Amino acid sequence: MSHNTFGHLFRVTTWGESHGPALGCVVDGCPPGLTFTLADIQSFLDKRKPGQSRFVTQRREADEVKVLSGVFPSGDGETYTTTGTPISLMIENTDQRSKDYGEIAQQYRPGHADFTYDAKYGIRDYRGGGRSSARETAARVAAGAVARLVIPGVKIRGALVQIGKHKINRSRFDWDQVDQNPFFCPDAETVPVWEAYLDEIRKAGSSVGAVVEVVAEGVPAGLGAPLYGKLDQDIASLLMSINAVKGVEIGNGFEAAEITGEENADEMRMGNDGAPLFLSNHAGGILGGISTGQPVIARFAVKPTSSILTPRQSIDASGHNVDVRTKGRHDPCVGIRAVPVGEAMLACAIADHYLRDRGQTGRLK
Amino acid sequence: MSHNTFGHLFRVTTWGESHGPALGCVVDGCPPGLTFTLADIQSFLDKRKPGQSRFVTQRREADEVKVLSGVFPSGDGETYTTTGTPISLMIENTDQRSKDYGEIAQQYRPGHADFTYDAKYGIRDYRGGGRSSARETAARVAAGAVARLVIPGVKIRGALVQIGKHKINRSRFDWDQVDQNPFFCPDAETVPVWEAYLDEIRKAGSSVGAVVEVVAEGVPAGLGAPLYGKLDQDIASLLMSINAVKGVEIGNGFEAAEITGEENADEMRMGNDGAPLFLSNHAGGILGGISTGQPVIARFAVKPTSSILTPRQSIDASGHNVDVRTKGRHDPCVGIRAVPVGEAMLACAIADHYLRDRGQTGRLK
Amino acid sequence: MSHNTFGHLFRVTTWGESHGPALGCVVDGCPPGLTFTLADIQSFLDKRKPGQSRFVTQRREADEVKVLSGVFPSGDGETYTTTGTPISLMIENTDQRSKDYGEIAQQYRPGHADFTYDAKYGIRDYRGGGRSSARETAARVAAGAVARLVIPGVKIRGALVQIGKHKINRSRFDWDQVDQNPFFCPDAETVPVWEAYLDEIRKAGSSVGAVVEVVAEGVPAGLGAPLYGKLDQDIASLLMSINAVKGVEIGNGFEAAEITGEENADEMRMGNDGAPLFLSNHAGGILGGISTGQPVIARFAVKPTSSILTPRQSIDASGHNVDVRTKGRHDPCVGIRAVPVGEAMLACAIADHYLRDRGQTGRLK
Amino acid sequence: MSHNTFGHLFRVTTWGESHGPALGCVVDGCPPGLTFTLADIQSFLDKRKPGQSRFVTQRREADEVKVLSGVFPSGDGETYTTTGTPISLMIENTDQRSKDYGEIAQQYRPGHADFTYDAKYGIRDYRGGGRSSARETAARVAAGAVARLVIPGVKIRGALVQIGKHKINRSRFDWDQVDQNPFFCPDAETVPVWEAYLDEIRKAGSSVGAVVEVVAEGVPAGLGAPLYGKLDQDIASLLMSINAVKGVEIGNGFEAAEITGEENADEMRMGNDGAPLFLSNHAGGILGGISTGQPVIARFAVKPTSSILTPRQSIDASGHNVDVRTKGRHDPCVGIRAVPVGEAMLACAIADHYLRDRGQTGRLK
Repeated sequence: MSHNTFGHLFRVTTWGESHGPALGCVVDGCPPGLTFTLADIQSFLDKRKPGQSRFVTQRREADEVKVLSGVFPSGDGETYTTTGTPISLMIENTDQRSKDYGEIAQQYRPGHADFTYDAKYGIRDYRGGGRSSARETAARVAAGAVARLVIPGVKIRGALVQIGKHKINRSRFDWDQVDQNPFFCPDAETVPVWEAYLDEIRKAGSSVGAVVEVVAEGVPAGLGAPLYGKLDQDIASLLMSINAVKGVEIGNGFEAAEITGEENADEMRMGNDGAPLFLSNHAGGILGGISTGQPVIARFAVKPTSSILTPRQSIDASGHNVDVRTKGRHDPCVGIRAVPVGEAMLACAIADHYLRDRGQTGRLK
Repeated sequence: MSHNTFGHLFRVTTWGESHGPALGCVVDGCPPGLTFTLADIQSFLDKRKPGQSRFVTQRREADEVKVLSGVFPSGDGETYTTTGTPISLMIENTDQRSKDYGEIAQQYRPGHADFTYDAKYGIRDYRGGGRSSARETAARVAAGAVARLVIPGVKIRGALVQIGKHKINRSRFDWDQVDQNPFFCPDAETVPVWEAYLDEIRKAGSSVGAVVEVVAEGVPAGLGAPLYGKLDQDIASLLMSINAVKGVEIGNGFEAAEITGEENADEMRMGNDGAPLFLSNHAGGILGGISTGQPVIARFAVKPTSSILTPRQSIDASGHNVDVRTKGRHDPCVGIRAVPVGEAMLACAIADHYLRDRGQTGRLK
Repeated sequence: MSHNTFGHLFRVTTWGESHGPALGCVVDGCPPGLTFTLADIQSFLDKRKPGQSRFVTQRREADEVKVLSGVFPSGDGETYTTTGTPISLMIENTDQRSKDYGEIAQQYRPGHADFTYDAKYGIRDYRGGGRSSARETAARVAAGAVARLVIPGVKIRGALVQIGKHKINRSRFDWDQVDQNPFFCPDAETVPVWEAYLDEIRKAGSSVGAVVEVVAEGVPAGLGAPLYGKLDQDIASLLMSINAVKGVEIGNGFEAAEITGEENADEMRMGNDGAPLFLSNHAGGILGGISTGQPVIARFAVKPTSSILTPRQSIDASGHNVDVRTKGRHDPCVGIRAVPVGEAMLACAIADHYLRDRGQTGRLK
Repeated sequence: MSHNTFGHLFRVTTWGESHGPALGCVVDGCPPGLTFTLADIQSFLDKRKPGQSRFVTQRREADEVKVLSGVFPSGDGETYTTTGTPISLMIENTDQRSKDYGEIAQQYRPGHADFTYDAKYGIRDYRGGGRSSARETAARVAAGAVARLVIPGVKIRGALVQIGKHKINRSRFDWDQVDQNPFFCPDAETVPVWEAYLDEIRKAGSSVGAVVEVVAEGVPAGLGAPLYGKLDQDIASLLMSINAVKGVEIGNGFEAAEITGEENADEMRMGNDGAPLFLSNHAGGILGGISTGQPVIARFAVKPTSSILTPRQSIDASGHNVDVRTKGRHDPCVGIRAVPVGEAMLACAIADHYLRDRGQTGRLK
């Protein structure tokens, strides 16, 4: 009943649990002849790696990716060239403290998938959330690194734009700031606000939600397969598939509900270079499910981590009322580490549509 | 490059343009032995039919559905029984005024798919928007009516909860009101507000966005195929595929970003009937991509119709600057007619997952 | 539980029963900008049309195809141009004599799908075989005609090479003969043999099997998606999906089991034109699941029609022993009419892989 | 451009090359709650393991399978229980002699995928055939072992029924013989014939083709998804996807072309137990694409290994004429080791359809 593959021509299958020996993915449909180094993939994994600041889980994993297939090694053993066959990527789990979870093996954490996995499967790997753990997103990030190779002209970046009720100031949005702080925050002045707020959340053993924005620049016009493979539809599907995501927007999103057709219209003029020019981008780069050539912009809301220290009313697998309190090493704001995951999902969606349109005749044209 | 099918076991393929001879869908995977009358399907089509009030397009279509295959007629010719083979549903186009569109055949309406269809396909059926017309949603509604047969214990309803900046008052939400006004509005006191506002919009030749809420009650716990066939993921995908939709939420959606883990946790207790009881439903009935047994709740934002009377700057297919003003019979608030469409998409998503779990051995168990 | 779609990028969904109001298909993924006339499609349907000789069913259907969507009509109304949106093709059923089948409504014809459809679905459209009727292949042929538009450089032809134990003489194989006789026979001297034999079969109310060969010339090297979308795999799948087919071969097929590696090797030399030259084609144009550039050659075995006049032992739906004798207008050798169907399936498989490799960016490159 | 996944609900993705660090598969959609030991999987891998007799490749691989995900270990660490999440199986490559292949890195072996992989991808892992190596079938066999868990009531067996022109004597077919000789031969008297013949082939550095028969007993009536997910269609597709397979038959296969409807009809009677009884099985257990409840019988032809010692004319990647002679450790009759692979493919096809019909609600019903 699982369905752990996504994509139509650029196809990714992920596997693995939080506390098994390893996790990974198979990236199928990657064109041949693309060259990369391990570091090209590892750098994205390092962005989402736990234990990098006090605002994310203190679980420490090396998260070192191995390439098991789909490539031909260069003479010096430093670089790989894709051969067009499936690329198997594996990350071994190295810091598993299963005993942390013993207490909740039979309890359902409110807001967590514990209850539904038991309801569906009748068995559940309670160690670290098993398959429902955010740890699975490491495989997504590795796949996303491969996707970026497929669309080298496309620049994909992400930022955190809201934690709890604290939003960034849009007028101060600066991509250069994103790597300067532990929050992927594009607004330098918001950083201390979030820092203070999250310290408070963390010390209370609580958690809080967030909003992530991901942007793809350089997407050519014409990508998308209407009606039921629309580019925005596939982006929405993949972003919603990330753990804890409860909402997805394209362009101005829910704000579009509030305005008139005049306000919403992205007017056009011919540019001096003879190319069509949009005067605004309410559409988020997608009209009728097809890319316009403008930046593709998406946002998604991440709910607060459900593993918190404060006791909550719940039940256990035997049908008894219990109070659940989750120890272990959790993210006070899982939305932070969702930034590279959102980027990866956007990269995969665009790579898939790129190949649908350009085909896979071997070398990219 | 199109991809006009959705669903994994309950599969729907739609076809047809606004101004061709007909449009329709093929519903594949419907279990055998389900009995229905034409009226069972027609009633849902009548809900989205144009021309029913001054707040929707004045185009008048009978929208009469025909069943071409997949059924065995009863002796009296009144009822059909599904045979398990593909059900072909067709709706003939009867009120096409192609000449209304002649002027914009070469122009790109800002905010419309005109530009992107040309960018992708190099040819475009400009008559009424062709395939990108909201008219295609008639086929979705017909498919949704069949989906409801598959999940008879599930009650699916929709309502409009926001037009422009005017939201309903949640404390007055009353499903019984929804059919009492031309807006599918669940709050009687909001009706006159919307009426006055939309009259103004309509007279100005303008348009405005809206938010639709759809709810499924009676969904059994355990539906959903994590990780990449999550129930919320598939719902998000299908809602985002509806024309003009720019955002999708499940449960408390973007509000989840603003609150803490304590606030967001849907606590549980064993009910007096020995069944698990949730004390709240921030999750919108889905945890970890799997249904909880609570009502499944989704919302989606519909942007304002891009066809407006006010001239907007744009370009034409030859690369000249033009001012576009769209005549024709358009919806001042296309979100209204999106209500039955959203219901249909939710029904299809749930029916698909129902069959994935229950299988299709012939008769539903 | 049905699954009436095939193809990955060139996707065909068929629908319809033998005795419903109509049958048809939706061809999805056809690139835009291809021009055709109704006659381009109709000519292939006419090849498989019943009633053309005494050796096929005497059922008479006009089998006139209608194009309901996916095209833009030319000014003169004679030609259509594809728009990249789904092409809906419909053929109305006009000569249904349901009463012919009344007697076997409750009986299971040995060798027919009657028993299994009842076993699976618990309900069955017994009129003319319903969905399991060879009549469904009309939709395949229509789809195949569209597939040919996608691969204009590829020439696809079929011939009957065996009826019962009577095989053609390979040394006399002449494509020009195929249209000169009612059997699609490429060997003029075999025609009278088959004629005499089939007259005998027909008069006895019996039926007999046949072998069809289909060939695609001009297929570029490099088509096929190993490992599980191999070109030969997809051809085998589609040929096996044709009613009554029990075996499929590529190239020398089962003969390959009998020979040595030396004999089977298709040796190569560089041709005078600087292109690789194969000295033989045991492989049938496919190695490792990928086309070699040589003609793609496939054969399939069609079993004898199960509807025969001779009584056979069987049971009925109530579990009683009965003797079944099928009246009605059946094909003494359904393999004859399978020739254009096999061609269509080969065309669809190649078109699908052509698009996978070339992509669907709008206009074919 | 690869497509390395098969199955609709029971989905298998394979990855890996002959000479990379490892190969494996991800089995997705396996129901939860199934218990197995490593030996349950290993035993099938051992059947196809190289180096077991002088009639197969002398390459020696331990072929030890590891289970990386999708299971919950028992307390004693001996048994695993499936959790419904994807099962990742890995086999490390341990006996790689890449230098054996250096000479043919730039040459195209006639009858091998060398030429087509280069034609398609422009790059090729020439070491041991890379992805086109029969070594990939180890992953299939591992997946097949999991498939058998899903359908415990179904008994799947295979046998070699023909090597070169030497066929078994059907009247002596005895399943008990199959494991008594290195050929999976069901006819004791044929064993010495094959032995002498293959010794001759082996000493000549030649190779020869074969025919494999696979049978599934205990398949319930009603499996299959007509029209384009017919059970026989899916079996044909998977058998044809095995390396070197050139033909596939169901039931009496090509023989069906030679006989009359009377001869081919599988007559029925009600059995003494009140169940339908077939008096013969020409259909091979499938009618109209749906299982009848009789044994499902398929055969496939395997061509001779293309890697032979006898020099053959060919070309190299630079376009020069060369004579190719393949050293290395190859199978004189690769059809022998195809027996467990064919069994695995049949198991996967049936498991997939079993789940489509029964669903995946957690525990198998």
